[in-house]
Amino acid sequence: MAPDTTAAAAPALTWDGRVLRLLDQTLLPAEETWISVTGAADTADAIARLVIRGAPNIGIAAAYGLAMEIARTPGDEELRAAARRLREARPTAVNLAWAVDRVQAAALAQPHGGRAAAARAEAEAIHAAEDAASLAIALAGAELLAGARRILTHCNTGALACGGTGSALAVALELASRDGGVRVLACETRPLLQGARLTVWELRRAGVTHELLVDGAAAGLMRRGEVDAVIVGCDRVAANGDTANKVGTYAHALAARAAGIPFIVAGPTSTIDPATATGDEIVIEERAADEVRHAGGALLTPQDTPCRNPAFDVTPAELVTALVTERGIASPPTTASVAALLDPAAAR
Amino acid sequence: MAPDTTAAAAPALTWDGRVLRLLDQTLLPAEETWISVTGAADTADAIARLVIRGAPNIGIAAAYGLAMEIARTPGDEELRAAARRLREARPTAVNLAWAVDRVQAAALAQPHGGRAAAARAEAEAIHAAEDAASLAIALAGAELLAGARRILTHCNTGALACGGTGSALAVALELASRDGGVRVLACETRPLLQGARLTVWELRRAGVTHELLVDGAAAGLMRRGEVDAVIVGCDRVAANGDTANKVGTYAHALAARAAGIPFIVAGPTSTIDPATATGDEIVIEERAADEVRHAGGALLTPQDTPCRNPAFDVTPAELVTALVTERGIASPPTTASVAALLDPAAAR
Repeated sequence: MAPDTTAAAAPALTWDGRVLRLLDQTLLPAEETWISVTGAADTADAIARLVIRGAPNIGIAAAYGLAMEIARTPGDEELRAAARRLREARPTAVNLAWAVDRVQAAALAQPHGGRAAAARAEAEAIHAAEDAASLAIALAGAELLAGARRILTHCNTGALACGGTGSALAVALELASRDGGVRVLACETRPLLQGARLTVWELRRAGVTHELLVDGAAAGLMRRGEVDAVIVGCDRVAANGDTANKVGTYAHALAARAAGIPFIVAGPTSTIDPATATGDEIVIEERAADEVRHAGGALLTPQDTPCRNPAFDVTPAELVTALVTERGIASPPTTASVAALLDPAAAR
Repeated sequence: MAPDTTAAAAPALTWDGRVLRLLDQTLLPAEETWISVTGAADTADAIARLVIRGAPNIGIAAAYGLAMEIARTPGDEELRAAARRLREARPTAVNLAWAVDRVQAAALAQPHGGRAAAARAEAEAIHAAEDAASLAIALAGAELLAGARRILTHCNTGALACGGTGSALAVALELASRDGGVRVLACETRPLLQGARLTVWELRRAGVTHELLVDGAAAGLMRRGEVDAVIVGCDRVAANGDTANKVGTYAHALAARAAGIPFIVAGPTSTIDPATATGDEIVIEERAADEVRHAGGALLTPQDTPCRNPAFDVTPAELVTALVTERGIASPPTTASVAALLDPAAAR
């Protein structure tokens, strides 16, 4: 398979039934390099290094990582160690533990001889479900934001982050496909610049009008009436609707509220963690100081400058206009409306 | 004069009575290079290129620039053209026009033979007044924030930006000199990274404990209770207290309000523009897209990515806990309290 074709069909990862190939997102947009992973250790490493990122894609990759490990070394102890290693690759995204738990449970429900096939089938089911979720989110979000033409987003929530064409960015792309006047304002998303590197790359490929801005410029543009809606993804949604997402998100939510424009969170229900009551309980990953000291490979400050580098922040549910999922919209998100998304039967 | 000695005594600029020397802040912290300017054109160019920056320092440099030009070419037409060129070097800082107007008026009040001396004396008076203002601001701000130990700031507002030891950063340095437990959280301040490059440089020189963070991390840290107060400078304060400052400031103000911590604006009264009724009238400088596309010299996104790059944003007065000036504190800033700072006699 030629890399370009692969990239066009499935920007972030491909699965051939045996080996998982990952587009190395740390090298975008300068280089489109694919790497192959074949077990839990190298998949966990790729997740930790952000070769693959975005809460849904982390879950998909971890599911395949565990399935590949089970196919190689199907013992109980190895299985649990591999699952633990994958779960610990990044602490904030709930999809990671959720996907690993699902594959582990599917495997352990079988006799030894059937484990590899069961794990693989479960990983593929997770992948297919995330693809379907992306499409449902795109359609529901575009209905909700019909008429909005200046859409501000943060980080990368497109096909590089999620199954299908993404979560928040999928909504923006769907809006753009319906109205040629739609314009996406992409925040660069320091420190790792997922907006400048990845979202811009996806928007160019999709032919959607866009402008890049520094994260600090978003609030002022909202105040000046230059943004119709903000839409972001989510790394973990608590039971009450509080949302952990890429650092910088919370400030956008405050500014959207002050400007009286919608602040939409989009993501698959796999990012909802009913075991986390509120955002205060969410562990925020603190990443290496070197990410802050550098940008695009350039050193910005003395090599030993002390830094704070929380990778995420929490936006309280009361600032979220609507949570858009593949199972419907919680508007506004509350403990009751979020629970109804997870268990529609109970809510009826 | 050895460059290092000069740098220690007066970090941003030195005036020997004839030539203005400027520390090239675009090269910090990697290089400490000084350039000499001798007239209006090269001074305006240095201001536009951010060799010298910070509203008070822009005013001081422009004052000397016009005085040097008048000493060289004292004709009326040349004087007005030089003043215009300097005023247009950057549109947002009110000190620039204010300082140029003062030097021009002082010169034009004299017969031709006395113009150069009058212009030079006026520029030196502006410089001396800004130095004195810095000290008064540092003392008043430190009284106001007594007990605060975790101070978050944005951009650079130290000696590199202002006369004396600065405005907002001068307050933080004064607090640190009184209490060894004071820690400054410096936002990097994209796109030009004045926090990462300049504020960190000044804090290291001063021996003050500090941590660098990306701009988007500030709001989340405030929400988590990790910040006691936010203090920023100002590029232009409208008559009602609305404040234009470096892009990113407004989001910090929203987050400080949500966290219930003080949001302090510090600056000399020369940054107050009574002719601007509210922040809505302030012209926001839109700078080159290449500033957003690059960081520290590295290209972050495709070369032709369209960008928005407003250099400033406006924080409405209702989010400002106090405006600290050399003539006292407006707490909160209102049309009446700001007017009283400019004309204490009228307020008595």
